[in-house]
Amino acid sequence: MSRIDAQRLLADLRTLRSIGTQGRGVVRPAFSAADMEARHWLAGRYAEAGLEPAIDGVGNVFGRSRHPGKALLIGSHSDTQPTGGWLDGALGVIYALEVVRALHADGATRAMAVDAVSFQDEEARFIGCLGSRSLIGALTPELERGAVDRDGITLSAALRDAGLANAPRLRLDAGRYVGFLEAHIEQGPTLEDTGKRIGVVDAIVGLRGLRFIFRGQQNHAGTTMMARRRDAATALYELAYRINQEFPKAAAERSVWTMGRARIEPNATSIVPGYAELDLQFRDASEAPLEAFEAIAMRLVEEMNARDGVRIEASRTRAPVAPSSMDAGLQEHIAAAAERHAPGGWQRMPSGAFHDAGIVSARLPSAMLFIPSIGGISHDFAEDSRDEDIVLGCQVLADAAASILSAAN
Amino acid sequence: MSRIDAQRLLADLRTLRSIGTQGRGVVRPAFSAADMEARHWLAGRYAEAGLEPAIDGVGNVFGRSRHPGKALLIGSHSDTQPTGGWLDGALGVIYALEVVRALHADGATRAMAVDAVSFQDEEARFIGCLGSRSLIGALTPELERGAVDRDGITLSAALRDAGLANAPRLRLDAGRYVGFLEAHIEQGPTLEDTGKRIGVVDAIVGLRGLRFIFRGQQNHAGTTMMARRRDAATALYELAYRINQEFPKAAAERSVWTMGRARIEPNATSIVPGYAELDLQFRDASEAPLEAFEAIAMRLVEEMNARDGVRIEASRTRAPVAPSSMDAGLQEHIAAAAERHAPGGWQRMPSGAFHDAGIVSARLPSAMLFIPSIGGISHDFAEDSRDEDIVLGCQVLADAAASILSAAN
Repeated sequence: MSRIDAQRLLADLRTLRSIGTQGRGVVRPAFSAADMEARHWLAGRYAEAGLEPAIDGVGNVFGRSRHPGKALLIGSHSDTQPTGGWLDGALGVIYALEVVRALHADGATRAMAVDAVSFQDEEARFIGCLGSRSLIGALTPELERGAVDRDGITLSAALRDAGLANAPRLRLDAGRYVGFLEAHIEQGPTLEDTGKRIGVVDAIVGLRGLRFIFRGQQNHAGTTMMARRRDAATALYELAYRINQEFPKAAAERSVWTMGRARIEPNATSIVPGYAELDLQFRDASEAPLEAFEAIAMRLVEEMNARDGVRIEASRTRAPVAPSSMDAGLQEHIAAAAERHAPGGWQRMPSGAFHDAGIVSARLPSAMLFIPSIGGISHDFAEDSRDEDIVLGCQVLADAAASILSAAN
Repeated sequence: MSRIDAQRLLADLRTLRSIGTQGRGVVRPAFSAADMEARHWLAGRYAEAGLEPAIDGVGNVFGRSRHPGKALLIGSHSDTQPTGGWLDGALGVIYALEVVRALHADGATRAMAVDAVSFQDEEARFIGCLGSRSLIGALTPELERGAVDRDGITLSAALRDAGLANAPRLRLDAGRYVGFLEAHIEQGPTLEDTGKRIGVVDAIVGLRGLRFIFRGQQNHAGTTMMARRRDAATALYELAYRINQEFPKAAAERSVWTMGRARIEPNATSIVPGYAELDLQFRDASEAPLEAFEAIAMRLVEEMNARDGVRIEASRTRAPVAPSSMDAGLQEHIAAAAERHAPGGWQRMPSGAFHDAGIVSARLPSAMLFIPSIGGISHDFAEDSRDEDIVLGCQVLADAAASILSAAN
């Protein structure tokens, strides 16, 4: 069995944390100076580990094994949220590096081919999972043309400023691989609640978004009688309330829905609002509840539009993300490794958050491993995991990788 | 009967409109360069009309009559909303000037004492009705100390920049006056709907405001199961919906309530919000519905707080404004003058908007006259009234003033 080096693993995680560090968190959004510095540092580490490093034309850092035979691709992303935690993405990136080194250090696994990757812009500064989309050939020119961050900077300007405008873009050679593995912090409280230390992901939930636009009539809040009002905010409150009443009737066990963003115009205490927007997002590991939720929302809008008053328009805010199943065979290898190192201490679970593995799974058999997040906190400076869990997760991943490759070659 | 000069009236309204003009609207917020220019221009017009002009230490423009005997105070405000209409406030200010001139031009009324006033900051850049509050002695040091506009400028800095820091502040000599009259555009659609041309205001509605603060727990929208969530926005939508369901049961005929401002933190599509705020404002011409509304809102908050989950705090956003009755005797004089010039073309009505007359009525018998707003639109560049209505309103006010003063002296 290939032993990972816990000190080396933790040291590399801390070095990566130091690039863009801010308080307990990390600020390293895609293509920022800190992000590019981290990518160049990682390319150097890949080279030291014996991989052929490259930073491609969208910023993916790729480390290709020189060994022949069927290969395994392992990795995650090293970009962060605008105010991110230190482990989200970074954990899986350094795990891949450590797995390469651990396998190389063991005679029994030395010849195995593991490629490591850190995808670019998983966190959607421009396009969520930009890097993995590009790798599998799903980054269309249309998608790319409209890509602008929230400060109005275009993707092409960011690529130019990062010195990537002329770098070639890597494309996945699917025939080379037996599959793709991604490790990640859970970003939720399930493992902590159940007292387990490893999650074997069986599916990544699908996600749909609807935006509702409410068009009424702006008026003075003192002089406009109730019967004459067409109050956009009143309609927003009603639709949101009724969605929260109706959705539980169609929900599966782990369905979630969120209306976390609302905008009211002009948003003044003394003015009857004439315009409002509400975002609804819903997720499930299977399509049926997603279909049902969308149908309920559209029926409520239709009912409210049948009355006089505020006019509601509903539109999809983004292309729906279909639920993606993780490969059953790869899951078995992870489960077996987890049982070996933490007997009874692991469970299968869906991923409520989206990941690069959801993109890659369209082209390669893919699987994911989770370790617990303290307090379930993520996308926050307070994000953290226990050192023992970090070390355990990497050892499980290394064992799973070795067993997958040994079965495939 | 003293005839007003329609051309002179309209010309002065247009001159005032030109100061701070922007498109069809006017941008002349309190203490801005345009506002102070308008106030100096008005002081000049007061002097030409034979009044003793003064700009006092809070920016009120006061024109004192040199005639002996009981006086009538007439006026409104010449400051505007940040993007205001041309008539709101300005109409009543120029009416007062024209009434002074019309009475002076007629031998029968020449000796009558009319003081004219343009109050400062009715539109609440710093403190709503700052000028009339100061005049009646209700501008407390506490109120003044905390006064900051939405750009963070303090009232004392604005007074200094306007050159008013050392000017004396006028105090109302209540014994001098028989009462106060304010003319204003209606700012609502009632007169247009009923086809009337003059409104005789019987009461200015009272107003109360509650702010609800919702404290939950911010979480990831994909990984946090519904049962674990403490979603501040969900609680906000529910409370707002239930207020809209419950208030009609306690409402009087002209009660209004508005929830035009909501704030959700961090207001992102993919994040379960941990914090939200909602403003509720309600108005009525009598206290009973206001009491009932406040009790209903507090009961709903209590019910929701009895559940686990989001914690709601309710607090008054400002000191309640009590409904104020307009003086019955003064109303009779306005009604008689309206019937003389527009037989059957006037009605009594409450004012849904607040006005300086609501402040002054605490110290002097007060009354208000409305003219129609085209489309009921106000606080908007599109605000307008027909020239015929503007002229009629001023003539009615002049007659009412003459008849009030003739009865009093």
